[in-house]
Amino acid sequence: MKAELISIGDELLIGQTINTNAAWLGMELSLRGISVSRCTVISDDKQAIIATIDRAMNEADLIIVTGGLGPTKDDITKVVLCEYFNSKLVMNSSVLERITRYFEDRGRQMLDVNIQQAALPENCTVLENIVGTASGMWFEKDGSVLISMPGVPFEMKSIMKEQVFDRLKERFHVKSIYHETILLQGIGESFLADRMKDWENRIREEGLSLAYLPSVGSLKLRITSSRGEVDQSVIENYFQELEKQLPQYVYGRGEESLSEVVGKLLLQNGKTVGTVESCTGGTLASAFVSVSGSSDYYQGSFLTYSNELKQKLVQVSSTNLKKNGAVSREVVEEMAINGRKNLSVDFCISTSGIAGPNGGTDEKPVGTVWIAIASSKGVYSHRFLFGNNRERNILMTVLSALNLLRCQLLGITDKN
Amino acid sequence: MKAELISIGDELLIGQTINTNAAWLGMELSLRGISVSRCTVISDDKQAIIATIDRAMNEADLIIVTGGLGPTKDDITKVVLCEYFNSKLVMNSSVLERITRYFEDRGRQMLDVNIQQAALPENCTVLENIVGTASGMWFEKDGSVLISMPGVPFEMKSIMKEQVFDRLKERFHVKSIYHETILLQGIGESFLADRMKDWENRIREEGLSLAYLPSVGSLKLRITSSRGEVDQSVIENYFQELEKQLPQYVYGRGEESLSEVVGKLLLQNGKTVGTVESCTGGTLASAFVSVSGSSDYYQGSFLTYSNELKQKLVQVSSTNLKKNGAVSREVVEEMAINGRKNLSVDFCISTSGIAGPNGGTDEKPVGTVWIAIASSKGVYSHRFLFGNNRERNILMTVLSALNLLRCQLLGITDKN
Repeated sequence: MKAELISIGDELLIGQTINTNAAWLGMELSLRGISVSRCTVISDDKQAIIATIDRAMNEADLIIVTGGLGPTKDDITKVVLCEYFNSKLVMNSSVLERITRYFEDRGRQMLDVNIQQAALPENCTVLENIVGTASGMWFEKDGSVLISMPGVPFEMKSIMKEQVFDRLKERFHVKSIYHETILLQGIGESFLADRMKDWENRIREEGLSLAYLPSVGSLKLRITSSRGEVDQSVIENYFQELEKQLPQYVYGRGEESLSEVVGKLLLQNGKTVGTVESCTGGTLASAFVSVSGSSDYYQGSFLTYSNELKQKLVQVSSTNLKKNGAVSREVVEEMAINGRKNLSVDFCISTSGIAGPNGGTDEKPVGTVWIAIASSKGVYSHRFLFGNNRERNILMTVLSALNLLRCQLLGITDKN
Repeated sequence: MKAELISIGDELLIGQTINTNAAWLGMELSLRGISVSRCTVISDDKQAIIATIDRAMNEADLIIVTGGLGPTKDDITKVVLCEYFNSKLVMNSSVLERITRYFEDRGRQMLDVNIQQAALPENCTVLENIVGTASGMWFEKDGSVLISMPGVPFEMKSIMKEQVFDRLKERFHVKSIYHETILLQGIGESFLADRMKDWENRIREEGLSLAYLPSVGSLKLRITSSRGEVDQSVIENYFQELEKQLPQYVYGRGEESLSEVVGKLLLQNGKTVGTVESCTGGTLASAFVSVSGSSDYYQGSFLTYSNELKQKLVQVSSTNLKKNGAVSREVVEEMAINGRKNLSVDFCISTSGIAGPNGGTDEKPVGTVWIAIASSKGVYSHRFLFGNNRERNILMTVLSALNLLRCQLLGITDKN
């Protein structure tokens, strides 16, 4: 079975938008046993669209097209597809109803261009978009399937999950590949590979494949079996082995976020948490709050970006600031201890560091970060040295802080 | 002149790597007047490479190929190109010298596969790679140019900058394309298109092209001229017209972020800002702090996620909370006014809303958000109704809050 992706949009060709849709689709399809053999990016141009689609329809069984379904004049995909598949646009009353509701719910005025989004080719299967106004379309011709989707990533993903993946399974009967993912924080790819050499070799010898999927501050490992679900328990055993050996790094499975994992632990233990942030500037708080229901354990935060506010809001002494500087064990511990009192929480995490790109010294280079956690048992603090990139340093700090709290909640003390 | 990009690599097709190379090349080439009409991603497969290159050589004047030049077995681009261009590999002594030095400098052992990287097709112009071991190659055939580059982004970029851009200018004498971008917040694509119909028609009649590039909570408009820089002032006039008509939405140009724009305005006015966040949970603070140098105007924040902390940290009265609820004009205004005092800042922004997906009522559905700004002139507040998606609601709130502050700083009061 051959699958192709076609991404339509000038913004992709001139590099104003990076084609994350193609990466997501490639990943999701390959996990479902459908491998993509080609991905083509073209502009919102009728001739280019028709030529590319026509070639793909002759060569592939499945073509997924993204982009060009918006309400404005430069979005021409729907009209071009309608012509290519010898169809005509007809007003779809249930789609129109949904679009009307979409605007009503948001208290926004519906315009004629929005109404026109409910006009869809007569001979396609309409794929409902429950998060936006551009519907997906499923065409069939000469044994090939062409699916057209909006280019807005979260709309495209929603339609794929809700409307497409099951239909593809039914239509193409692909043998599904089985895979599981385990999540780690605080350990690098090559360090892990070196430490778990034997484990990795055994996995490969068993005919399974192991992929390292690193992202900033965390690492996913995916084990894939082409034999299918029969290998579920084998994979699970490998994961448990890893978890047992490296409990300080392994935090979850699948698609869980570290914030969710920590949130669940706090709920289970009936504990509350708050934060006092300096270098992370609210990003640690927002990681907690990103989880729905977090108000059950997350109470709030002081963001003491300036030294004055460190003194005023969490009573860091001026002597401490003068003697040790804002980025120090002493200051970060005082922030956590007093923050815990002022916020009336069980755990209080504080951060202070030099996120960069400027502000480093020989003694405290850019990337130096202190994290402290105060609890009823006292205060624990740890120094990290990240890199030169501001955004990455902030994210690494947030993930490290969450993982330190996870280890405390689970009583994992070994941080090697 | 037609240009195409071809990216080679299985990791791109299965989505393990996002194709940032194509975006970078598209951007850099378009800025130099070379527009990319197609980008194709294929796997490290001989047949696919030859078929794609052959079609591209017939259709385009310039083809830039990235990927598949590494030292391992799955990297076959060089050998395939050598065959396609009827050439043979010959050892290039100056490249070999450089690779040898590369390994010596790093104290690493040079393997035979590394030596083989110095064997290059006889009929290509070698493009020196000063940051890695895979050389670029420039082929010419039947009037078309094909450039092959390593897939590692920083190596590719280095070769493009050092070896390719000047050569392209000389070879193709391209007239440069000119484009400018203007940035808006708080207005949807279709609403803008409807409101600025006449403006848009005039742009198109003038032979310029207009593209809408929407993302969550903000909108980019790009005007492109194929006549080049000569249209700079024409485009600028259109932008100024838009700015004059919709000053409450237009916040910047080019690649500026709204946080940067607001930061600059605060600096210019010598004003400080702080935040009191509930539903945004630190994301508003982190938007301020994401800008390097923000400590000059951004002081800090209270994150009062719980009602208790709203009372304790920013003295919202329990009567107010009981009578109006946490998501109300009265509470959000009290948060801003008292936050301003407690943080000793000129402007204090507060947020309170129902980010979802749960917690909505008939009166206050999910997506209801109140934002207030307190300043020396008093307090201003505004109610928004966003959608059902938590992450999007938080982002929309942050951008709306920044834009409200921008309007206050500029004295823009009309918010239609």
